[in-house]
Formats: sequence, C-alpha cells, structure tokens
Amino acid sequence: MHDGASTQAFAPPLLGEPYLLTPGPLTTSAEVKQAMLRDWGSWDADFRAMTVELRRGLLALTGDRRGDYDCVPMQGSGSFCVEAMLGSFVPKDGKVLVLANGAYGLRAAETMRYIGRPYTLIDKGDYLPPRGEEVAAALDADPGITHVLAIHCETSSGILNPVAEIAAVVESKGRKLLIDSMSAFGAIRLDVNEIAFEAMVSSANKCIEGVPGFGFVIARKDALKAAEGNSHSLSLDVHAQWATMEKTGQWRYTPPTHVVAAFLQALRMHTAEGGVAGRGARYIRNRDVMVAGMRELGFETLLSDTWLSPIIVTFFCPADPNFVFSRFYEQMKQKGFIIYPGKLTVVESFRVGCIGRMDEHVMRKVVEAARQSLAEMKVASAAPPADAIAERAKLAA
Amino acid sequence: MHDGASTQAFAPPLLGEPYLLTPGPLTTSAEVKQAMLRDWGSWDADFRAMTVELRRGLLALTGDRRGDYDCVPMQGSGSFCVEAMLGSFVPKDGKVLVLANGAYGLRAAETMRYIGRPYTLIDKGDYLPPRGEEVAAALDADPGITHVLAIHCETSSGILNPVAEIAAVVESKGRKLLIDSMSAFGAIRLDVNEIAFEAMVSSANKCIEGVPGFGFVIARKDALKAAEGNSHSLSLDVHAQWATMEKTGQWRYTPPTHVVAAFLQALRMHTAEGGVAGRGARYIRNRDVMVAGMRELGFETLLSDTWLSPIIVTFFCPADPNFVFSRFYEQMKQKGFIIYPGKLTVVESFRVGCIGRMDEHVMRKVVEAARQSLAEMKVASAAPPADAIAERAKLAA
Repeated sequence: MHDGASTQAFAPPLLGEPYLLTPGPLTTSAEVKQAMLRDWGSWDADFRAMTVELRRGLLALTGDRRGDYDCVPMQGSGSFCVEAMLGSFVPKDGKVLVLANGAYGLRAAETMRYIGRPYTLIDKGDYLPPRGEEVAAALDADPGITHVLAIHCETSSGILNPVAEIAAVVESKGRKLLIDSMSAFGAIRLDVNEIAFEAMVSSANKCIEGVPGFGFVIARKDALKAAEGNSHSLSLDVHAQWATMEKTGQWRYTPPTHVVAAFLQALRMHTAEGGVAGRGARYIRNRDVMVAGMRELGFETLLSDTWLSPIIVTFFCPADPNFVFSRFYEQMKQKGFIIYPGKLTVVESFRVGCIGRMDEHVMRKVVEAARQSLAEMKVASAAPPADAIAERAKLAA
Repeated sequence: MHDGASTQAFAPPLLGEPYLLTPGPLTTSAEVKQAMLRDWGSWDADFRAMTVELRRGLLALTGDRRGDYDCVPMQGSGSFCVEAMLGSFVPKDGKVLVLANGAYGLRAAETMRYIGRPYTLIDKGDYLPPRGEEVAAALDADPGITHVLAIHCETSSGILNPVAEIAAVVESKGRKLLIDSMSAFGAIRLDVNEIAFEAMVSSANKCIEGVPGFGFVIARKDALKAAEGNSHSLSLDVHAQWATMEKTGQWRYTPPTHVVAAFLQALRMHTAEGGVAGRGARYIRNRDVMVAGMRELGFETLLSDTWLSPIIVTFFCPADPNFVFSRFYEQMKQKGFIIYPGKLTVVESFRVGCIGRMDEHVMRKVVEAARQSLAEMKVASAAPPADAIAERAKLAA
C-alpha cells in the first residue's frame, strides 16, 4: 500500500487488516507482534532481565541524568495507571487541583471522588486549554492544594496542553505536578530538566507503539519512597510495586509477559527511529499531511494550528445532511482505515489519529479514502455548520 | 520432544524455549500466540463481537442455564480481579470471612485491609484446608459476617480446597460466597447448580491456557446490579465495567486486545478438548504421571493424594546437603523445564505445575530431567528431612 518513495518503508498491516487511526490501541509493526510468539516464566531470570530493560529504556527518554527518577510499570490500562498515580502519590491529607479540558481530565476528577480524597477542579469544557495564570490564581486561593494534575495531550479534542507553562507555575508556588502523558510520551518531549514533575504516567500502546496491557509510572525516587502506605488499592499501589521490583526484580503480581516482550521490541524500534525526536517528527509529518489534505476537502479542524497535537486531530462533521458519521466510519473502514468518533459535547465531530506504525504515504491514502467516502455519501461540501465555527471562535477570545 | 505415540500430538515450544511448569503464565499453544499477530480497534464492531464471544464462552463453563449469571472481564492480573470482586460485591457495611491456607488467602485479607472494610480471618497456615465445620462456627459466632471468601486451589501448596463443603455451609447460614478460582477454573468443575456462589474470579493465563493480561469475574446478575456504588476504585469497579459492556459492548477502558484475541483461540481449543472435563482429565493425567515418577525418584509430596490438585504439586526439598534449589532450578531449566520455587514457611520445598499446553509425555521427560539433575548434583537420596514428614503428619491429625 506504500509508495515506492517511502523513506520509512513500513510494511502494511496483514491483508484485510485496517489501519487504526485511533489514539491506541494503534497499528503496530509486525516485529512488535512477532515478539509475542513465545512464553516466558514471570519468575525466571530471563523475564526479570526484560523488566530491567523496559524500566531503563523508558527512563532514558526523560533526560534524567542525576538518577532522581525511577520507572514502575503497572498492569492494566492507562486509566489504571492514572488511578495508581493519584492513589499512591497524593497522601490521604493531600488535595489535588485537577485541570480538565475533556474526558481524561474529568476521569481524573472522578478517580479522586472514588478514592475519597479532596480535589478541586478547573473545567475548561470541551477543549479550551488550562493556562498558567488561572492555575496560579487557584493555587493562591487554596493553600491546601498539594498537587496539580495536568493532561499532556487531551485526546478528547486532540489539544496539546501547555504543560511547560503549567509546570513553571506549579513549581513557583511550591506544589507538586502529576502529568497524564498517556498519548504524548515518547513522541512529545517531556524532559525532567525542563518540566519538573513529581510523577507522570503513560501506557504501552501509545507513542512507543507497543500493544495494550500495561502502563507505567515515572516518578521521583523520593516521591516513590514517600508513597508508602498512601494507596487505597493493593493492586494499584505504586510504592509496593516499586519496592518489590527493586528487591526481587519481579512484578508484584503476574505481568502481561507477551505484551512486555512486544513493548521491548517497540522500544528498540523507537530508539532506531531516533527516539522522541524522531518519532515526534514522523507524527508531525503525519498530522501535517493529513490535516492539509482534509482541509483541501473542506473539512475544518476544531483547533487552530497553535494547539493541534501530532497525536490525534478533531474535525467537525460536515453540515451537509447527507453526512452521517456511522456511514462515514463504515466506508472508511471498508477502504482500510478505522477512524474514531468525536467526544465533543457541543457540536458533532470525529477524530483521526496520527500515531502508530504509519507514515505520510498512508496519511495521503486516508485523505483519498475520505474524499471517496464523501462522494459515495453524496456530501457536496465538507464545511461544518455555523455553530461549530462559533464554538471555535472561543479559542481566539 | 514428544513420543510418536502421543494422543495429543502437541507441538513443542520453539527451539530453546523451556516448558513452563508453573501456575501461570504457562506454556500456551502456537495457535494461541499466533492469534496476536494483528491489531484491533477496541471501539470497532469486530472487537466488540470478540468481547461477546469471550463473555458467552466463559459463562458456558459454569452450567448457568437460567441466565442468572454474567461474565465481566477485567484488565490486569488475577489479583486485580480479586480486589475488584471484594471491592465491588462487599458493601461498605459488609464484613468478609477470609479462609486462608497460603499466600492467596492472605493476599485477599490484605486487600480487605487496603480497602478499609471489615474482615475476619481463618488462617490455617501453610496448607491445612479450611473445613465446613469451622466455617459454620465462625459464621454462628459473628452475625455481622455477610460474605465468605474461599480459595479454590491454593497454589502456594497446590491444595484443592473443599469449596463444595464450604459452599453448602455458607448457603445454609444465609451468607454469600466469593471464590478465588484463579488456577482452577476451566479444569476443575465449578458449576453454579452444585456450588452456589455470588461471584468468582479467574484469569486468562491459567487453565483456559491463554496469555496473561486480564482476568474475569463471573457473578450473579442481581449481585452485579447491587454492586453499584460499592467500589473503592474507579478502575476496578466491576459494576461499572459490566454496565458499560451491557450498554456499549465495549470495555470501559482500553482492553488488552491481543491478549483477548489469544484467549478466544484458547477458549476454542478448550472446547475442542472437551471443555472442563477434557481439560481436567489431561491435567489429572499430567499430575499422576509426574507425581508417580517423582516419588519413584524418592521425592515426597507435601500433601496426601486426597488433597493433591491437578494444578500444581509441592515437593519437599531433599534433605541431602548436596541439594541446592537454585542449582536444581538451573539444571532443570537447561533441560527445558522451568519449575517453581516453594512458598512454605516451615520447610524447604519446590513446586511443579501440571497445567498448560503439555501432556503426559512431557511429564515423563520432566521426571527424567529431575533424575539427571539429582545425579549431576550428586544427590544420593531425594528423601525429605524428618521435620518435613512431621509437618505433613498434621494433615492426618
């Protein structure tokens, strides 16, 4: 399916298997999946060595040269990791300022409600970014706030939130920053020398391009030590997982051994592609090619270019009454591309992911498939309705 | 590695890959692993259909003909599922009687401590089985107990606990039974028409012979409904996972798609082998052949035959000073077999699993490898020390 001129020369998925233009699970390389073709004993030295490689490889992406941080993988999905981070690093008498502009920020707030610890919420609605100034004001207004939770890339809208700006404020106010970098880590720089965070989480099936089954916490070692006894959950206790790994080299409970093996292969390929910078450059190119093509078709993005992440992009659904998302989805799928429904509450939208084992040549075919699908649906114009444009005008305000 | 006469004709692992004689992760078939060679979108209809097949296939193993039960898969390891079950089905004003005779019972008690709900513990030590009479006495003594947690097969020792006996008592006393059937379900009958349970948990990488990455809860539908609002954890909320699956067909958070695909293949092969009865018969034969061979070498089992599960068997380490477990482990591994260390607190022991993609022909080779390993270590006798025999005498008392 690729042009001969492809610089990446990625093998396409198996015959009949669609590309996943979603924020993960995503399309992974054949090599990553082939790494799952054997079984490992989780207690055995061979697997313990794999766990060491995994933790080192992830830490190496953070720029931690002083050895201040450590990496703790955790079974489950990304949301399990977010909960593990909140439950482990926020003490029972702590209080979290949650910065929300979409589903993942709100989910973090819901997690706090479940675990019964105090939090306060800045909810910017569907996509408006939380800014440093308002974080500063909230921290000044409530000295009881000990931690701030920020979403790096909020995939509900695809916005890349200003975490550096937020981190500077949080540090200047003497509070601690927790980052949900689920869909960003590995493709967007998150260097501990530039952004001071207490802990962050991401997951195997995002920008490192592994398969789903675990996530990981990267945290300051002093925070990991101090987390003892905080957790509301045995399974999600990051301190206990870390202490066990340090002592025995094993995960506390059965790890997803095959998923770990796949992830190691993915990490090696991430390194071979030039690490965070190389991976990020490909995703940016994917986004630029795809967005330019979709705009040529008349589609409009929710966000202006300033806020567009190279992870996933939200497009308004066309106003044309012939456009029905479920049909568009099926027609794109028939052409080999699985797209993603929107999550905006105000206007109809859909999303197209830029991450996974694909390059700009694939993205050109995505645009061509969208063009054909519109034609098949007899959609004359992909222009969004007026209320979508009015909604977007809020960003400039 | 198999005799030509093998009735199962299982393909051996890849060259150089040892058999895992452990209680999971275990040796899986090539077909199961090959099912992981493609990517799925977790939102897509194709994957939702896979989730339906998974839930139906597991429910079919329980004998539930009236539709009283439902199956809810849950991301993470088996311990995540145990915690999810305890946190979701035990209301905040409930109280659990935990029946422990090994690490997994004690872990359930620790889970209750973490989630801050009342429990009481019957701890029978390393392996002695909790009996119906003492459960009855405990329930009579404390009317506040609402639930009883039993371990089906306690893999610490390999004992098959008397869950039918316990279930009868719990039912007669009007309490609710929760079963950790992690290492037993799929090979040992657990029929809702014979054993009345409120909920049970098991995991993908045990007797169904899938790979690790998720577990599952099978529970009464009325219990699933009543569980709303109970959970201490957002991620581990069985009610919320169930409600989302019923409404959307999706897992609430990203599922381990590849692991699910592998599990479906494993379920099909489980059916082809004759379901629980067929799978159980192979494991019983594995155990019988292996235990007979090991006894011929002079090894002695911790348990008498009455209590030996077909899942995993504990052997005493030989008293001979030339026997060093770490050397024995390495020598067995070099011969293609990964065994498991013991978990007894009183005497030295090791364990050999009987589950996974292997048959009696493999078990004969395990015994031969043990014989060779003893010879290489210059262990003259595999007989256990006197205190081991004294320990075991407790079972008869």
